[in-house]
Amino acid sequence: MIIERWVPLIGWLRTYHRGLLTRDVLAAVIVTLMLVPQALAYAMLAGLPPEMGLYASMLPLVLYAIFGTSASLAVGPVAVAALMTASALSSFAAPGSPEYIGAALVLAALSGLILIAMGVLRLGFLVNFLSHPVISGFVTASGILIAISQLKHIFGVEASGHNVVDLLQALLGQWQQLNVITLLIGLGVWVYLWVCRKRLNGWLTKLGMPASWAGLMVKAAPISAVVVTTLLAWGFQLEQRGVDVVGFVPSGLPAITLPSLDQSLWLGLLPAALLISLVGFVESVSVAQTLAAKRRQRIDPNQELIALGMANLGAGVSSGSPVSGGFSRSVVNFEAGAATPLAGAFTALGIVLATLLLTDLLAFLPTATLAATIIVAVGTLIDLPAVKRTWQYSRSDGVAMVATLLLTLLHSVEVGIISGVVLSLGLHLYRTSQPHSAVVGRVPGTEHFRNVKRHQVETDEHVAMLRIDESLYFANTRYLEDTVMALAARSPSIKHIVLTCQAVNVIDASALESLEAINGRLKDAGAMLHLAEVKGPVMDRLKHTAFYHELTGQVFFTTYDAWQALAHPASESQLPATLP
Amino acid sequence: MIIERWVPLIGWLRTYHRGLLTRDVLAAVIVTLMLVPQALAYAMLAGLPPEMGLYASMLPLVLYAIFGTSASLAVGPVAVAALMTASALSSFAAPGSPEYIGAALVLAALSGLILIAMGVLRLGFLVNFLSHPVISGFVTASGILIAISQLKHIFGVEASGHNVVDLLQALLGQWQQLNVITLLIGLGVWVYLWVCRKRLNGWLTKLGMPASWAGLMVKAAPISAVVVTTLLAWGFQLEQRGVDVVGFVPSGLPAITLPSLDQSLWLGLLPAALLISLVGFVESVSVAQTLAAKRRQRIDPNQELIALGMANLGAGVSSGSPVSGGFSRSVVNFEAGAATPLAGAFTALGIVLATLLLTDLLAFLPTATLAATIIVAVGTLIDLPAVKRTWQYSRSDGVAMVATLLLTLLHSVEVGIISGVVLSLGLHLYRTSQPHSAVVGRVPGTEHFRNVKRHQVETDEHVAMLRIDESLYFANTRYLEDTVMALAARSPSIKHIVLTCQAVNVIDASALESLEAINGRLKDAGAMLHLAEVKGPVMDRLKHTAFYHELTGQVFFTTYDAWQALAHPASESQLPATLP
Repeated sequence: MIIERWVPLIGWLRTYHRGLLTRDVLAAVIVTLMLVPQALAYAMLAGLPPEMGLYASMLPLVLYAIFGTSASLAVGPVAVAALMTASALSSFAAPGSPEYIGAALVLAALSGLILIAMGVLRLGFLVNFLSHPVISGFVTASGILIAISQLKHIFGVEASGHNVVDLLQALLGQWQQLNVITLLIGLGVWVYLWVCRKRLNGWLTKLGMPASWAGLMVKAAPISAVVVTTLLAWGFQLEQRGVDVVGFVPSGLPAITLPSLDQSLWLGLLPAALLISLVGFVESVSVAQTLAAKRRQRIDPNQELIALGMANLGAGVSSGSPVSGGFSRSVVNFEAGAATPLAGAFTALGIVLATLLLTDLLAFLPTATLAATIIVAVGTLIDLPAVKRTWQYSRSDGVAMVATLLLTLLHSVEVGIISGVVLSLGLHLYRTSQPHSAVVGRVPGTEHFRNVKRHQVETDEHVAMLRIDESLYFANTRYLEDTVMALAARSPSIKHIVLTCQAVNVIDASALESLEAINGRLKDAGAMLHLAEVKGPVMDRLKHTAFYHELTGQVFFTTYDAWQALAHPASESQLPATLP
Repeated sequence: MIIERWVPLIGWLRTYHRGLLTRDVLAAVIVTLMLVPQALAYAMLAGLPPEMGLYASMLPLVLYAIFGTSASLAVGPVAVAALMTASALSSFAAPGSPEYIGAALVLAALSGLILIAMGVLRLGFLVNFLSHPVISGFVTASGILIAISQLKHIFGVEASGHNVVDLLQALLGQWQQLNVITLLIGLGVWVYLWVCRKRLNGWLTKLGMPASWAGLMVKAAPISAVVVTTLLAWGFQLEQRGVDVVGFVPSGLPAITLPSLDQSLWLGLLPAALLISLVGFVESVSVAQTLAAKRRQRIDPNQELIALGMANLGAGVSSGSPVSGGFSRSVVNFEAGAATPLAGAFTALGIVLATLLLTDLLAFLPTATLAATIIVAVGTLIDLPAVKRTWQYSRSDGVAMVATLLLTLLHSVEVGIISGVVLSLGLHLYRTSQPHSAVVGRVPGTEHFRNVKRHQVETDEHVAMLRIDESLYFANTRYLEDTVMALAARSPSIKHIVLTCQAVNVIDASALESLEAINGRLKDAGAMLHLAEVKGPVMDRLKHTAFYHELTGQVFFTTYDAWQALAHPASESQLPATLP
């Protein structure tokens, strides 16, 4: 039972049958066709040799199949993780060098260990602090950054950099080295993929193909571009005309090796590994949850941490780059009918076969083809309308999103996402430190109390009822003191101040001290402090404090009770106040 | 008018009269007597030559008198700032060296500029993030640390360190070098001051002295200890018997000089300057507010930032150590009748006179006397019962307090306070990420709805009413989704889910996306999502979103409206649901 919780495969494998097998194998074939060019392309994006993308698509997928809870999530190299890997490793070694490759394996293993630790310690809630606007702004910026970083392969020039400014400068500086054949291949594949994406589906369904099949054909378009341009490069010996190709890819399977145990390297890569882990997990879980909900299935986020951790650890010991759940491949996997995580294991088998059989051919594949594949693929990541929508709904969310987007583009992925997280937390705290509050009055004839500025309500000159729309905690204690004392100073006729606490979900120790101070100051000024609508959990704590016993006024169950006890509106006859 | 806002002196000086002058001068005399030994002692604590404490009690006090808004706050060298100064400077130079002194001036000037900038930019709210328990734990730990750091002067040995472990280790290592005469002086003064503090007040009032005068005599006790031990050291030539004395103190006023403009020094001291500024400001403002409230006066926190900033800037250009508002001196100043900030300027004059006339004598003052003065003075900072009280009231506040206290004691002041702030913010966010929520039902015969687990309430099998006791924002979106979907999954008979939003003070962009997802998932499951008691500001925003238009259910003004429209308790005849 306990083993089944940690190894979900044991559970669902018992009821596995031929029908599911057929679905999983079919899905695996289609995902494999999509994954081969992507694995090569994202390894290139990460500055790693192409075979590392293939290796990252073997053992990690098998491990995810054993530990994962999503039937649809397609694990492997993904664009954003590749970009983050390149950015993280650039400060440790030159791209492609043995040190760089070694650091990539450490990064994968470290991400794996972080994810596993978070899963075991049930720390999945940590990803909650990556707000949707920050993630969305980060992913959009990453998409733009990735697309621009690939332009050099389309132009056939050398240019590197980790933000938009550096990349464009480097590109412009290399303008003269432009290779026309490379440019033709790159642009040709780009236009071909673009047309497939926009039109092929429509054409195929017009020709009578079922919509689902047409959709899958579109997703498999890159493999046709790979085959055609590889054959062109091979047939016309394009490498000798200056066209950059993938080159030698070792045939065979990766060796299982321990990554470097250099302590300073592990420590240095820790922040980057943490960011890659968190971003990869958030993206994987949101894809997996969306797809699971469509089939009324559930995934277990904490078990997903362990599964993704195992997959990354597997990448780290089998010469693979860091992995994550890919959005587009997962959707294809789902649409192709993948029924269990075993589809991923069959995909791994497909990649093994490709690595054993196709590497001689892949050596001729032009990098411009891969670059065009990446550029078209990351188009789905870029969502600029979301920026406008978020900005219109909430200025502070908009600020966090735009800051993340711009800093990622103009500085680096690390600074971009960290700034976004810090800014969104800071803005949240700033907002709660100056909460909304309202003086309320009675909606005539009811037991309801509403803002005197928004509604026609009854009030009493001796009773001021204040509703603070926030928990009382250290960040807003000063605001609380200022607001209550300003209210008391408004008119000397105010004898009772009622704090309506329906929105107060907690009163922390700082706020308690402030309430004590307010109670004392109001007492000196000849006014009483009352509380109303105090929630159960808050009241449980207050009861044992000195403040509760020193409170000059009462604690009422409802605001209406307080109104009945304290108020004497001039026009109505009411109960007399029950207080001396 | 605008000048008067920035320079409050111009305002109150117009109505200054002889009666106020008498009070201010009297208070200044008493504070001066108290400040002379403290200025020397806190300079020693900060690792600075004694005259720097005196210089910090001249120009800074005059500047505070010009810009300050508190009639009672006594600015000058204080214990906690001295401790933080020593800790900050220790990594830049050896205590007492010219580089160390230069760095102290930069630290004062930098603190000044930070405070002025915060005042001009109205950033006073930043101090809200120092919660009361963190400040309290930090001040208690600082008091303990200061007392232990002074033991070396009592024992007459060399020992330094910035946490309790290092200090005690150094002390034990130097045990053999103990100087008996120094120990006798130190213990003698300690016991004398202790007795004065505990008993003198009682004895004097028994002898017929008015209580206020007796209190002031107690506060002036250190000056008598200084006089007596200085005369002893001078008469018996104690310096030649190995008793450490203050030594040469230059007579005369400090020169006005610019502090070093070494950029790396400024950058290196920036974090420490920020901490000293924030802690000093929090302590000063809370003392000033407490004392102002007793006389029904108000202080302006943002103007206090500017005044304390000017005082520190003044210290930085006149060879003074960083300054702040002192707790005990301010209370004495208040009790002695200080009527305006001019009392501080008169205190500065007193210190100038002391520096001109007494420095030849002060050279013989034993450092053990100063150490005993410090130890007794910081006793008021240590408040261990507060730890127990806070722990009992709130576990998370208690954790933040204890962590601040222990880390300050065992590691360093910087790590202690930063950990406290980060921990209190983290615990607050963690709590709001897993908010309290309750399924509610109707209190029979009323329009009120309460937790079904705490109260006898009516419910309806088709209607689930959920009250989330927290604003909906990125940190709790996952919790929201999980809670609502789990509620919907409880029973297939649930057709309506009503989210009661009386405690929801904001719905941010992340939560809006989650509500959209919940609405869609409930729709697929054949249930409708309704909202009730949405606050005005929240509703204003929701109205313009796609979610509002796609909402399957309605938005009700009150929970009772939702109940009337949706519920059909078996036992009562109710209105039919207004929804299809």
